[in-house]
Amino acid sequence: MTQTLLHFEDFTLGRTFEGGPYAVTKEEIVEFAREFDPQPHHLDEEAAKTSLLGGLAASGWHTCAMTMRMFADMLMPVAAARGGIGSPEGRWMKPVRPGDVLRLEAEVIEVKASASKPIGFVTFACKVFNQREQVATIQMTPIIATRSAT
Amino acid sequence: MTQTLLHFEDFTLGRTFEGGPYAVTKEEIVEFAREFDPQPHHLDEEAAKTSLLGGLAASGWHTCAMTMRMFADMLMPVAAARGGIGSPEGRWMKPVRPGDVLRLEAEVIEVKASASKPIGFVTFACKVFNQREQVATIQMTPIIATRSAT
Repeated sequence: MTQTLLHFEDFTLGRTFEGGPYAVTKEEIVEFAREFDPQPHHLDEEAAKTSLLGGLAASGWHTCAMTMRMFADMLMPVAAARGGIGSPEGRWMKPVRPGDVLRLEAEVIEVKASASKPIGFVTFACKVFNQREQVATIQMTPIIATRSAT
Repeated sequence: MTQTLLHFEDFTLGRTFEGGPYAVTKEEIVEFAREFDPQPHHLDEEAAKTSLLGGLAASGWHTCAMTMRMFADMLMPVAAARGGIGSPEGRWMKPVRPGDVLRLEAEVIEVKASASKPIGFVTFACKVFNQREQVATIQMTPIIATRSAT
């Protein structure tokens, strides 16, 4: 079956996509933290118990990275994506724990066509959930080719 | 020499801190992309040449993670930091390439005391530079204990 790729014009305000699952492991939490965010509550179970997080939890930037992976796996196969320009906002609301299984709801909240190139910027509000509740909102602004570009 | 830790009250608007360096390698760019952002322009030199980035470059989320590492190495030894709540904004302005050496200028742009706990939220605008120019602005909001907490 051939599938027509989604282009900039197809990302209308309010359109929603779903991504995931992403299984969070203790090993990955510790590995990411050791490389990029070596705070005790991301590295050490004992130290984490007395932290504000109340137990070992992923770096917020690790949650962003896991969300990017769900987002890419969701969008790349179906859209004419060309990279990204940033994240207008990221809020880490609840701890992301070892054993959590994350999923993604991504809603188009802003669209802006380039004035000079056959591309546009589509901002998604990505709500990230574990099995029980929302744990983060992370906005993503991928670059999507317009229909005239292809 | 003993050093008094910086507390929430010490982070006055406009106060600036410097971090880095962080040496960017091709191996790390590809490893991060394979795990979290598997777009061709972060994975493959040939595919990257014809992309909007014009050559292999780090995932924007990898730039965020490298910035977090510079930020943590800068702040953790000197401040009563207790984690973070998010990033009000991240803008990826220029490609981050293999061989780049990044550095950080972090300016306090907003401070907000907790109404209920002996902590406060300090937002930094982190300007990230390579050897030639600014490549990103990434905001960070760590939680810092107040002086009364310790």
